[in-house]
Amino acid sequence: MEVSYDPLRATAALENGIFPAGCPSRTVLDHVTSKWGVLVLLALSEREHRWSELRRRADGISEKMLAQTLKTLEQDGLVHRQSQPVIPPRVDYSLTDSGQEVAALLVPLATWAFENAEKILGNRN
Amino acid sequence: MEVSYDPLRATAALENGIFPAGCPSRTVLDHVTSKWGVLVLLALSEREHRWSELRRRADGISEKMLAQTLKTLEQDGLVHRQSQPVIPPRVDYSLTDSGQEVAALLVPLATWAFENAEKILGNRN
Repeated sequence: MEVSYDPLRATAALENGIFPAGCPSRTVLDHVTSKWGVLVLLALSEREHRWSELRRRADGISEKMLAQTLKTLEQDGLVHRQSQPVIPPRVDYSLTDSGQEVAALLVPLATWAFENAEKILGNRN
Repeated sequence: MEVSYDPLRATAALENGIFPAGCPSRTVLDHVTSKWGVLVLLALSEREHRWSELRRRADGISEKMLAQTLKTLEQDGLVHRQSQPVIPPRVDYSLTDSGQEVAALLVPLATWAFENAEKILGNRN
């Protein structure tokens, strides 16, 4: 699997977009790299999850933070919320096309963190 | 430019590493995706920066947060701090090899955020 990008487009992003405080792309970057946003997007990159599954998966997240994270990602059009007409009530969450795009960029980052954690945190000793 | 990764390694990271609360890779992920950590790594992905340049580049960062962010990234072995023996004193910051690796994964994410910000935030209206 490969994540390819055009260096000229990257340069444009770095030159024009990401650094000014009021820049919309910084808001987007904040949402998708937030502590819980990352984990929710990574979990959903595998498959759709029910609320209770996400709650367990993103270990340590509170009900409130999960609700807030999902609301932000849903408003951003990255996560799709599907309320199932069953008893007991069930809500499924999945990635939209945009959500899949960004999750595909987060997976290599998470993989890097996983594979380098020992070395990185070992530098502290 | 391409960021390639092995889906089996990604699966291993997602299955074993990233989600448990005490997991070291989550600490690493938190450092490199923190609000200011991302911007500092992105700025240094372009070239080395002096303290004052980083302060201006990561628009809105306080002295305290810049100091804290750089200290964390330096302890993680991602950023190299070079104090120049000149008058007035000057300190240059650059990426280590590990820092370059992770910055190369953050650049496509920032590019995506830049190119999709209008659409993403437009979903809110």
